[in-house]
Amino acid sequence: MVVHESEPFNAETSVAALGEGSMTPTDAFYVRDHGPVPEIDPHDWRLRVHGLVERELSLSLTALREAFREREVIATLQCAGNRRAGLMAIHDIPGESPWGPGATGTAAWSGVALADVLDLAGAAPGAGHVGFEGADPAAEATAGERFGGSIPLDKARRPEVLLAWAMNGHPLPPVHGAPVRVVVPGYIGARSIKWLERIELRAQPWTGYFQHVAYRLLPPEGEAGPGAGMPLGLVALNSDVLAPVDGQVLTTGPVQVRGYAFAGGERYVARVDVSVDGGATWSQAELLDDLGPWAWRHWRTTVHLAPGSHEIIVRAWDSSAATQPDDEAGMWNPKGYVNNARPRVRIQVV
Amino acid sequence: MVVHESEPFNAETSVAALGEGSMTPTDAFYVRDHGPVPEIDPHDWRLRVHGLVERELSLSLTALREAFREREVIATLQCAGNRRAGLMAIHDIPGESPWGPGATGTAAWSGVALADVLDLAGAAPGAGHVGFEGADPAAEATAGERFGGSIPLDKARRPEVLLAWAMNGHPLPPVHGAPVRVVVPGYIGARSIKWLERIELRAQPWTGYFQHVAYRLLPPEGEAGPGAGMPLGLVALNSDVLAPVDGQVLTTGPVQVRGYAFAGGERYVARVDVSVDGGATWSQAELLDDLGPWAWRHWRTTVHLAPGSHEIIVRAWDSSAATQPDDEAGMWNPKGYVNNARPRVRIQVV
Repeated sequence: MVVHESEPFNAETSVAALGEGSMTPTDAFYVRDHGPVPEIDPHDWRLRVHGLVERELSLSLTALREAFREREVIATLQCAGNRRAGLMAIHDIPGESPWGPGATGTAAWSGVALADVLDLAGAAPGAGHVGFEGADPAAEATAGERFGGSIPLDKARRPEVLLAWAMNGHPLPPVHGAPVRVVVPGYIGARSIKWLERIELRAQPWTGYFQHVAYRLLPPEGEAGPGAGMPLGLVALNSDVLAPVDGQVLTTGPVQVRGYAFAGGERYVARVDVSVDGGATWSQAELLDDLGPWAWRHWRTTVHLAPGSHEIIVRAWDSSAATQPDDEAGMWNPKGYVNNARPRVRIQVV
Repeated sequence: MVVHESEPFNAETSVAALGEGSMTPTDAFYVRDHGPVPEIDPHDWRLRVHGLVERELSLSLTALREAFREREVIATLQCAGNRRAGLMAIHDIPGESPWGPGATGTAAWSGVALADVLDLAGAAPGAGHVGFEGADPAAEATAGERFGGSIPLDKARRPEVLLAWAMNGHPLPPVHGAPVRVVVPGYIGARSIKWLERIELRAQPWTGYFQHVAYRLLPPEGEAGPGAGMPLGLVALNSDVLAPVDGQVLTTGPVQVRGYAFAGGERYVARVDVSVDGGATWSQAELLDDLGPWAWRHWRTTVHLAPGSHEIIVRAWDSSAATQPDDEAGMWNPKGYVNNARPRVRIQVV
């Protein structure tokens, strides 16, 4: 892994580990924390469900496992800051980490459907959003505030949204949110709250720091502040190249180009194109394992390059026939979120 | 209106009419026909519902009106060829019309929810798609084929999908599909089949010409053919400028810039930015009437320009923080569909 910060722990999956396959190994899966990993005894753990509900719940891990059917969803999680390094190449972004392409990964998540828990609690009139709070205090927020966020009730009722206790067939490791985390496929990773302790049905979206101040797309000249800019939520179409890597020197012969593309789930990756002539012509990459709607697609193609300098450009298309913006310059935002510009890799062939 | 073809009738809304407000008047609403307008006596009209259903239906207009609750949805329809002129400025596209920004419009549609009709028919096991066929024979397709297409059953069950008999409070005019048309908000106009006569529940998507051959996004060097390229369906984020118009000569003073933006419904228009310095800086436009999730947003802003030549560039952002691609060159496709490049308007200030 590539460690950006050790306390709180922030590390992205290496390009080498990403490239090994469409499923990301648990021990290589990216970690974006905002505070120390809380120590939670699973026997003492309770999940409180309250707010605009017909009945409040307090569920132990045993109750959660026994009361509801276990489900598995293969889902890609993606940090809103994934690929920020490309935006920081234009202007520095003080206080933020230069994440590369590895602030995203795909795992099989097991647990219960949030929808089943919400059915038991019952949404009271006026409920429109489902808030989540973890056990992790976050130094950058208001004193004493824990990490949290909310999603619309309509999304919360979808079968793909889980309260997960397992990842890739094994219990969640502490760093990934044990004993239970939320997994919201198709939303930025910040909504998949780890170390979940509280679910609050609300009339309005979460007003805590991590949704109302942080994780917002500010206009180019905008300053952060409560409610500034637009909230992030749904994941935008994106792709990146995993091989070859920028600056690599290759010998002549066929070059295999590999990478990932993700369209967010409500849309799927329809096509990935690769150009080695500055975008004048494009060839279609082969889409690899289809892991279902909530997961990225890995892709690969082979190009033939003469000796010299080359730039490989990639563009993914989603099922609405939307494609990625050309470059980072046209999407600059002060906190460096949602860089989904067409990836470009410069290589030398000798 | 700007008439592209008289037989079949194809005409787009003029920029002047689009600019009059967020609702498009019925008599200025774009028309994209593939055959002559069929003559249908509403008293004789029957809607057949068959295929993978539990019970076949044959519904008269009276039965449709009396058996189900009437609903209204304000929805933007958009032809997949909207803004094709921008792509044809790069290469000619023989056989296709150079639609400008007016192959789209917004109306209040009234009728019954398709979901209610499907509930009565009952989806049989294996049903995954809902096909629609109109009464209009289409010369460009296989001999005898009528215009048709399908949408996924999941979408067909959504409350916004209507079988509509009224538009902006009045009965549908013949050219817009009387007595009954489908309205599929968030999908390309080609799925909102006019002069509807047949609904077929199917295991697979429609294999007729207008979905399996036409209305597909081909790769840059691709040739049309059954199943070639990717099917179109969901509408991609788009925007265009309605004033000033390209080539306009203005006197110095404040210039009001106006236009529309549409994100397809599952996503909303979060922001519209305007640049008058080649994209170096951007200011946010004001978003006008919010007509609900299935309608575009009109927007406006005022810029101040010194005498000389200027280019106005616009970029919309949707609620996933995705924005439009920079220009048409990077999204060329042989049939000229889904031009959602950032609009550019060149003006002179004297």
